[in-house]
Amino acid sequence: MKSHQEPRSGSSCAACKLLKRRCTPSCQFAPYFRSDEPNKFAKVHKVFGASNVSKILNEVPEEQREDAVNSLVYEADVRLKDPVYGCIGAIASLQKKMIELQDDLILARARLAYYVDHTVSFSDDGGVNMCPMVEAFNVQDCFSFDQFSQFPFP
Amino acid sequence: MKSHQEPRSGSSCAACKLLKRRCTPSCQFAPYFRSDEPNKFAKVHKVFGASNVSKILNEVPEEQREDAVNSLVYEADVRLKDPVYGCIGAIASLQKKMIELQDDLILARARLAYYVDHTVSFSDDGGVNMCPMVEAFNVQDCFSFDQFSQFPFP
Repeated sequence: MKSHQEPRSGSSCAACKLLKRRCTPSCQFAPYFRSDEPNKFAKVHKVFGASNVSKILNEVPEEQREDAVNSLVYEADVRLKDPVYGCIGAIASLQKKMIELQDDLILARARLAYYVDHTVSFSDDGGVNMCPMVEAFNVQDCFSFDQFSQFPFP
Repeated sequence: MKSHQEPRSGSSCAACKLLKRRCTPSCQFAPYFRSDEPNKFAKVHKVFGASNVSKILNEVPEEQREDAVNSLVYEADVRLKDPVYGCIGAIASLQKKMIELQDDLILARARLAYYVDHTVSFSDDGGVNMCPMVEAFNVQDCFSFDQFSQFPFP
């Protein structure tokens, strides 16, 4: 019986090329893995496997599939570069830097609060102002960083 | 021919249980996927597939395999919760918050520098100090955030 799915008029998509199969008009991968970007599919195939990528794409609405593919390619790329930690290495490093930034901000605001409490400021025209920027600073008003649990590195 | 790999005396590891195969003393998964934690392997199997997990483990030195397994489990867990963005969603969110924190820090330091330039401070004993903390602040001395390229969300 002849299939209703005819081969695409152009070349196969990068996924069908790698998987050595015929690329049909209903190919799930073709919209996201163009034949001139073979590495994109090769990466996700190596890390997630074609069938898992297919399952993930089936799980998400069509309008979000391009984002899903881009995030899978990015994640696979990072895992291939860092097989031990992958994206988790980047997350842990960002979390560490966030904490450093938070500490720096708390320190800067605490010093600012000290200044506000202990100084008389001069305006540019030579006048004297008491605490002109006091409303702008609050040591307690620091960034709350609790959305992501820390990755439990040893 | 009788195999040299005898079945384990205890129960099969979580991976062999899920894959319905005999767990041997040389099972690559057994040290990391205990039988009493079936979800751990189920997650990585669903997202990466057993053979890709095996390949990744083979690529990393033995002393780093536990870290590799933990990062794979964490990554799989996030992808199952957020099939579109997975860990990339967390990275993009952390990057956004980093930029906000950097902006806050630049602002706080700029205001501090302004204070240092425009104020006379009083010490706690009632004396007068000119710019006592000037050496501590430098608006240019802000955190440099260039290690991770931004994920190209639309």
